[in-house]
Amino acid sequence: ELVTLSSDFFADKYLQNQHWVITAGPTREAIDPVRYISNHSSGKMGYAIAHAALRAGAKVTLISGPVDIAAPTGCELIQVISAEQMHKQALTYAPQATTFVACAAVADYRVADIASEKIKKDSDVMQISLIKNHDIVADVAQLAQKPFIVGFAAETQNVEQYARGKLMRKNLDLIAANDVAKAGQGFNSNDNALTVFSAIDKIEIPLANKHIVAKQLVSLINQHYLLKHTRK
Amino acid sequence: ELVTLSSDFFADKYLQNQHWVITAGPTREAIDPVRYISNHSSGKMGYAIAHAALRAGAKVTLISGPVDIAAPTGCELIQVISAEQMHKQALTYAPQATTFVACAAVADYRVADIASEKIKKDSDVMQISLIKNHDIVADVAQLAQKPFIVGFAAETQNVEQYARGKLMRKNLDLIAANDVAKAGQGFNSNDNALTVFSAIDKIEIPLANKHIVAKQLVSLINQHYLLKHTRK
Repeated sequence: ELVTLSSDFFADKYLQNQHWVITAGPTREAIDPVRYISNHSSGKMGYAIAHAALRAGAKVTLISGPVDIAAPTGCELIQVISAEQMHKQALTYAPQATTFVACAAVADYRVADIASEKIKKDSDVMQISLIKNHDIVADVAQLAQKPFIVGFAAETQNVEQYARGKLMRKNLDLIAANDVAKAGQGFNSNDNALTVFSAIDKIEIPLANKHIVAKQLVSLINQHYLLKHTRK
Repeated sequence: ELVTLSSDFFADKYLQNQHWVITAGPTREAIDPVRYISNHSSGKMGYAIAHAALRAGAKVTLISGPVDIAAPTGCELIQVISAEQMHKQALTYAPQATTFVACAAVADYRVADIASEKIKKDSDVMQISLIKNHDIVADVAQLAQKPFIVGFAAETQNVEQYARGKLMRKNLDLIAANDVAKAGQGFNSNDNALTVFSAIDKIEIPLANKHIVAKQLVSLINQHYLLKHTRK
């Protein structure tokens, strides 16, 4: 079932007239002016997808959390810090998109009361109270005018079960799952391996450089996008 | 009181025969395999101090949390992630040092129970319980064979009061304070301004590029080191 690509595949601008909105990187949730909660996302996978979609001729809006890599030339870069900021930008741009790829590792929770001054360490123990953030990809899937929606699931166990649950519960078109507990792939790595689920399919994209994985994923997303579009 | 430097100042290897141990960057405290608590330290100030000390002829051991900048050529780089790892390395290297500069923004607390698998977001609220980390600079100051010790205080309010309190309470020789709430200095900036306190002195190093501030600070530390050494 693996998508095979000819060497001159990207000579074809097969995404012309498509507008992809892609979220990438981590978010940071402030505890106080100095401290924050974040995660190990490097943004490499999302940026590679943006690059591949651009190469294939799409207009690309990249909504990115704080990362240390350069955005691909030609994309519209929207920089955000927190999950709430990313949520706002995603809901602004998604209604005009043909395709929405939620690759960012968005913080599920934010700090309930962000301290305006640096918290002093007076006590031996401390509690941080968190409240749930809006679910970006689920909210995009609730839009009246909604794009083709691809989610991501970075898991450390029960990968297929969690990914299929997320696909159905959030009403996504596709979900790309990876096992971040495996060495040499996922967060901060240059390589990745994905298992992509639709309601009926399961497609493996084997371990490779994230740019190679991204090219295959972009093609796969487009195939499913065209299928859905044709069926309508 | 400002230290003035002639242009050929660093022609003099005035730190030869000194061994500086410098901590730099943030630490990361794991919540689960994916999420962590960190802070906005970029490592730039600590790395600039390491660079300046090397230029002045010191042997330099740089104990660094995760940063995105390259270590200066010629230093011994010890990479760590968590505050506990930094504590262990600091107490290993400090007894051989002439000077210990605690520039890292060490997490005051770590997560009490680190989850071995990614925490699922089942509930609308979540509590993270934190426990206090060892105080690295205070523990170095407790060593029988202790170096000259310079602490840092990054504050958002009451800067002098907190800095002087920390100097006395932790038994430091000098403390370099900066107001990270001020725009254009401190965390992640290329510039910094410091106020350095000894038990009796207060010296201002005005806003400038961190490499310029570091040169002045290194010279200032050495002056106080020599004073203390001479008094003995």
